[in-house]
Amino acid sequence: MPIASAVQEALGSASLIRKMFEEGNQLKKQYGPDNVFDFSLGNPDIEPPPEFHRVFVKLAQEDAKGSHGYMPNGGYPEVRDALAAKAGKEHGVCLEGSHIIMSVGAAGGLNVVFKAILNPEDEVIVSSPYFMEYRGYIGNHQGRIVEVEALPDFNLDVSAIKERLSEKTAAVLINSPHNPTGRIYPAETIDALGSALKAHGDRCGRLPYLIADEPYREIAYNNIQVPPILSAYSESLVVTSYSKSLSLPGERIGYIAVSPGIQDKQEVLNALIYATRTLGFVNAPALMQRIVGELTFERVDIGIYARRRDCFKQVLDGAGIKYAEPEGAFYLFCQVPGGEDSAFVAHLKKHLILGVPGRGFGRPGWVRFAYCVDEHIIQGSAEAFKKAMETWKF
Amino acid sequence: MPIASAVQEALGSASLIRKMFEEGNQLKKQYGPDNVFDFSLGNPDIEPPPEFHRVFVKLAQEDAKGSHGYMPNGGYPEVRDALAAKAGKEHGVCLEGSHIIMSVGAAGGLNVVFKAILNPEDEVIVSSPYFMEYRGYIGNHQGRIVEVEALPDFNLDVSAIKERLSEKTAAVLINSPHNPTGRIYPAETIDALGSALKAHGDRCGRLPYLIADEPYREIAYNNIQVPPILSAYSESLVVTSYSKSLSLPGERIGYIAVSPGIQDKQEVLNALIYATRTLGFVNAPALMQRIVGELTFERVDIGIYARRRDCFKQVLDGAGIKYAEPEGAFYLFCQVPGGEDSAFVAHLKKHLILGVPGRGFGRPGWVRFAYCVDEHIIQGSAEAFKKAMETWKF
Repeated sequence: MPIASAVQEALGSASLIRKMFEEGNQLKKQYGPDNVFDFSLGNPDIEPPPEFHRVFVKLAQEDAKGSHGYMPNGGYPEVRDALAAKAGKEHGVCLEGSHIIMSVGAAGGLNVVFKAILNPEDEVIVSSPYFMEYRGYIGNHQGRIVEVEALPDFNLDVSAIKERLSEKTAAVLINSPHNPTGRIYPAETIDALGSALKAHGDRCGRLPYLIADEPYREIAYNNIQVPPILSAYSESLVVTSYSKSLSLPGERIGYIAVSPGIQDKQEVLNALIYATRTLGFVNAPALMQRIVGELTFERVDIGIYARRRDCFKQVLDGAGIKYAEPEGAFYLFCQVPGGEDSAFVAHLKKHLILGVPGRGFGRPGWVRFAYCVDEHIIQGSAEAFKKAMETWKF
Repeated sequence: MPIASAVQEALGSASLIRKMFEEGNQLKKQYGPDNVFDFSLGNPDIEPPPEFHRVFVKLAQEDAKGSHGYMPNGGYPEVRDALAAKAGKEHGVCLEGSHIIMSVGAAGGLNVVFKAILNPEDEVIVSSPYFMEYRGYIGNHQGRIVEVEALPDFNLDVSAIKERLSEKTAAVLINSPHNPTGRIYPAETIDALGSALKAHGDRCGRLPYLIADEPYREIAYNNIQVPPILSAYSESLVVTSYSKSLSLPGERIGYIAVSPGIQDKQEVLNALIYATRTLGFVNAPALMQRIVGELTFERVDIGIYARRRDCFKQVLDGAGIKYAEPEGAFYLFCQVPGGEDSAFVAHLKKHLILGVPGRGFGRPGWVRFAYCVDEHIIQGSAEAFKKAMETWKF
């Protein structure tokens, strides 16, 4: 047995998203990049804002002594202070720098949180459909994922979640704005979930954590405010990154914000710092920490995503494809006529359209298109979508 | 139970090295940085070489479109090609880019390797004394650490390792140049270990991996060549970083190099890439990948470390403290007169000298001093060391 059995098993069902990514690159080589309508990967194509470039060049020119060395595992104190102010404002709580742990993106942050809190056989509830990588993140630390179907409009089904709470429930993991549906959970839902977790904890003696994975917080349309998490429930942690808000996914920079009212706070913070170290992250990349610390309130121009969303909706409307109305993030989650998502995705590929089958998110019968691609690609796909639909038999 | 039991336990015995790091910062605030002789942390203080600065500024000014986006999880193909050429040359084998997986430092790389290969209860043999973080890295992935005492000169005890090989042995983890002793394992030792592993594997049907953690490969003195690993044994993996060779520990950049002759090579490579993704690293930081890809054969001026080593040896000789002769890395591992390492470290602290007790490396009775600090601090410590020794009762 050359590799770990669990990894061997996972490799068999390799990430559908990454698979499409590789296939997309192949097709682009073959047909030219403008002739492939690649909506498979959430790889933001909008460049970081001009302020990013300014700070990047400034820090490179300064290249201050010691600026690439180790710092405390939780990150530079001054950066944590700056981000505490930002996250505190977003979440309606008073945060200190010590409540922020810098992380290697949100994926790194989630692994750190699960390492810090999960005991073997502990359960983490997720709302399905969901970003399938969560399975791995939870399994890495001996947790068990419990899937609860979302409501038909993809809002959280708080009643159904309540029914699955037990003394094994370590956490509920939510993601809003949501990948793949674009749904933003309203404040009432978050509050209802917080109350349900509190009531459950008071009854059974174990307060589950609420973990909010929210790299898309800043990508919200029609002036919708993504409701706060940390003020809604004491035992909450927010995990986020600058992958989308500053378009820096390859640089792996994000943070964990811990509710100031969390029980055993110092122990939780110490555990997060220990997990950061022992999982081998050690610290978030030094340079990017300093850059985001200076760009606290910057973000990419989300008007670009809003226009693409509208454009893509027209394309889908024109082809007669139904979708969940996206309130945030940059995905359109569409119903597959007839329901055979894998076959539909294969059929689309013949028309050089790439999407990810819903089963890649635990929801067969749907398909996800990411619109972090240039608008002319979206417009250009209109004919291909129409032709694909004309020839789609179900 | 607010946090994971295993983490709670580990927090109790928090990293002695990091603890000293925090205490050192406190003392420096109190007494001024030049009056504290802080030899606790291996945080390279030599600045990256001038070429680093040139490439850093160049890439910042270019800030090419898409350069902060996702790339394949294993890293940029052109960077992997460049590092394959470098690692192939160092290890006397012909490597392709696909044999290199870019990692978030060596600590990240080791976690990726253990995630990829370990099944529950699998054993990993280490030579004691050793970098205590290995315990966490192995435990994260349900492995068990098996400590084998080094020979009196701190070379590997291959006979003793042989005796501990079993069908549970997934890997032997070595580290040369060695932290904390500065030992470089000679070629005959590596070859003998490779032969022992091969013979064991042929007998029991499971070839253990040889994992070489070698962030200090480029820090070797007196023209000693660190012997190759990948050519010495087919089932070997080298994990390394630019933390020491380019003084970039805070930037978290390194790589895993896989022996071209490894069994089930494609499966191993896929497992490493999967582990990179699922552990939340996703990829090594994009900018630093591109920088090290352009600095393949650059390194810091190790003459500086060599001079410090000589200076520190004089200081220790002057104080009558015995040490293992360091051939590489930047540590002096010293015998504690009387053997009470924790008490000795506490005693030294009164003289504002900071070191790490040997028990922090599984070897009580010794103390480690890191000489990645300015030479004037080393020189300045001479009197303090003498005074400390005069008043040390054992």
